[in-house]
Amino acid sequence: MAASVESHLARILTTGERLAAAGRRPDETVALADALDRVLASDVTALAPVPPFTNSAMDGFAVRAADLAPDDGSPVTLPVTGDVAAGREPDPLAPGTAQRIMTGAPLPQVADAIVPVEDTDHSPGPGPAPDRVRIDRRPEPGAFVRAAGEDVAVGDPVLRAGDRLGAAHLAAAASVGHSRLPVRPRPRVLTVSTGDELVAGGERPTGASVPDSNSVLLGALVTTAGGEATHVRCRDDVGAFRRLLDQNLDDVDLVITAGGVSAGAFEVVRQALEGTGVAFGPVTMQPGKPQGFGTLRAPDGHEVAVASLPGNPVSVFVSFHVLVAPLLAQLAGTRIETRTFEVTVRRGWSSPPGRTQFAPVVVSREEVAGDGLVGGLSAGFGGSLVAEPAHPHGAKSHFAASLARANALAIVPAERTEAKVGDLLEARAV
Amino acid sequence: MAASVESHLARILTTGERLAAAGRRPDETVALADALDRVLASDVTALAPVPPFTNSAMDGFAVRAADLAPDDGSPVTLPVTGDVAAGREPDPLAPGTAQRIMTGAPLPQVADAIVPVEDTDHSPGPGPAPDRVRIDRRPEPGAFVRAAGEDVAVGDPVLRAGDRLGAAHLAAAASVGHSRLPVRPRPRVLTVSTGDELVAGGERPTGASVPDSNSVLLGALVTTAGGEATHVRCRDDVGAFRRLLDQNLDDVDLVITAGGVSAGAFEVVRQALEGTGVAFGPVTMQPGKPQGFGTLRAPDGHEVAVASLPGNPVSVFVSFHVLVAPLLAQLAGTRIETRTFEVTVRRGWSSPPGRTQFAPVVVSREEVAGDGLVGGLSAGFGGSLVAEPAHPHGAKSHFAASLARANALAIVPAERTEAKVGDLLEARAV
Repeated sequence: MAASVESHLARILTTGERLAAAGRRPDETVALADALDRVLASDVTALAPVPPFTNSAMDGFAVRAADLAPDDGSPVTLPVTGDVAAGREPDPLAPGTAQRIMTGAPLPQVADAIVPVEDTDHSPGPGPAPDRVRIDRRPEPGAFVRAAGEDVAVGDPVLRAGDRLGAAHLAAAASVGHSRLPVRPRPRVLTVSTGDELVAGGERPTGASVPDSNSVLLGALVTTAGGEATHVRCRDDVGAFRRLLDQNLDDVDLVITAGGVSAGAFEVVRQALEGTGVAFGPVTMQPGKPQGFGTLRAPDGHEVAVASLPGNPVSVFVSFHVLVAPLLAQLAGTRIETRTFEVTVRRGWSSPPGRTQFAPVVVSREEVAGDGLVGGLSAGFGGSLVAEPAHPHGAKSHFAASLARANALAIVPAERTEAKVGDLLEARAV
Repeated sequence: MAASVESHLARILTTGERLAAAGRRPDETVALADALDRVLASDVTALAPVPPFTNSAMDGFAVRAADLAPDDGSPVTLPVTGDVAAGREPDPLAPGTAQRIMTGAPLPQVADAIVPVEDTDHSPGPGPAPDRVRIDRRPEPGAFVRAAGEDVAVGDPVLRAGDRLGAAHLAAAASVGHSRLPVRPRPRVLTVSTGDELVAGGERPTGASVPDSNSVLLGALVTTAGGEATHVRCRDDVGAFRRLLDQNLDDVDLVITAGGVSAGAFEVVRQALEGTGVAFGPVTMQPGKPQGFGTLRAPDGHEVAVASLPGNPVSVFVSFHVLVAPLLAQLAGTRIETRTFEVTVRRGWSSPPGRTQFAPVVVSREEVAGDGLVGGLSAGFGGSLVAEPAHPHGAKSHFAASLARANALAIVPAERTEAKVGDLLEARAV
């Protein structure tokens, strides 16, 4: 009985949730510069406020609003008793005076408003502060003043455990006083490609041998997803495969195998693992129909997830994105965010009945005459996203060399047998 | 006279194109495992065909179609003289016989068709080959045979110079016989944050000092964009700033400065560089209005691009994505692909008249009841993408700590003064 993609994925995620909770290794603490792309281990709150002190939002003059009579349209002239640049602590404002002040510089004590330089007789730009300034427009109390902690108060939540840390996360942490962050350990992944025919990727194949492109593919996919990949290649020998697992399971959180899972006479992964905690069977997806998933107990007692994918490189690619990447996110301690978007089919292809197809496609923005796109900037609307199959002949699953062109997987529902020109499909970026 | 974003970007890209052509350093050659995310330096063609030899597309039996009379509905039984697994070179097929064969295994010479195991009296799955096989459905010549080079012939183009290498690119290179690839050197970027108020990111600020979050932000943005960042911090001292450039320009392709470019009394970057090859002036964008761009001549004679951004972290973030990332892509030797998509405004905000606004927003998929999303899989259509401002109070530009939530910049055209609920806007992922 074939499983639907949804039910197979749900089973994987249930297991992943359990393993992520059970098998958590100690967190690490790393400097901000080393935290890029890592997963935050705990919530981060502000150690320091933003802004760190009350400051000016404009280049201008700091005044006390009460020193100036209500605005009757007539200008007021005040003596200028100070010049406050960023980074300097100013003297308190003497009543009835002004201090020149730059954007971001600390507001002098007593002062409670900023008069922008444009509302005075002083010229903006480089040059000494004047002795006196004429104020043409009187400010309300608080005008152009940024209060300490206005954006973030000490103790405010800033980042959430599970965030995958990008540039803006790291800058936010720095701005609230952090120099190091606690991060989760990267999931350790053993990738295994199987087959007597495989030779190391890049070796020139001879006779009946085939370059092992899956080791390269899985290694890069795991790295991109935030895992640490170790690769081994295994011949079609059940004993050798079992020994290989015994030797490596202690050191990993997840095993991904490629090949040896379908219904042939020599299916090493299936023959070695059937009857253990790993179950094999068809999933109604294309490519990637034969699948295995479950867990194994390592010699040291910890439970290791095992995802057994078919060996065809396009099946590996699709199975990884649809089934393994969400699991890897769980094991990494981060959230799963698979955003889909809508595409219009520009060149059609066929899809097998009864299977959800994940077709590698090239998605591009439909060009609309005269929309003035410069480097992706568009003031108008540049038409919808259109998809065409990554391989010129259609969505066959063994066309590894065409996969590099694909930037998305278009999803053809199981009840449809083709993607016709003009059809709307969901797609997900890869 | 303020420049539009389009014209400012066009000027940057014209310079970038010139520098990328003039200043090219030698390419490197790296192993596939080290080539992830690097930029391919030359076109890659196939050294080996895909498939590397003619093979079977199914588990079944290899036969010579001419040995079998035209199909009259009656079965034919043949002796089985071999068992071909993947990785083994088979003996030639004796006329009037069959050989069992597995998916991907080499087709024996003389054989020209495959009978799938389902069309015989033999059971699929593990077990020895039979002595004889009954063929229930006779194949056409070529049935289920994959010819050597059917997907990719030797010499076929596989990857293009300028591709940024992802997992599928590396797997494609491996599958056509490459173990190493020529890649372009990463652009070397000096990032400079300026201001007497800055202290190292993560140091607890005291008095009038502010954590230098821009060094962290720019370092991570440059790394993510494929560059190599070196960071220096400079106080508000024109002489110190010039000396710093003199000491570093020989070693870099691009300088990005943050701060010191607007119209205040102490604008170190502007005062140090105005009148050189770097021009300063307003660009009609929000945030990021004050901008500087141009080139400087390093002591060793090579020309270095200089992008001078305002110092506010949100301005740095937006300016980097809109103006610097395309330049960095040029210097890296890759193509610029800024894909935009359409979002519907779910919570509105205001935008300054006459400036194109790039508002940091959180884009999510509108939830539609009962569409059965599991981990982003959807067989139906899950509604449109909706955007809301990343900061609860709107699109102000100094709310650094909220930037981490943003996953896109929504673009509000210059002629509009607000993004109203229900408006359609272009957005770009960040």
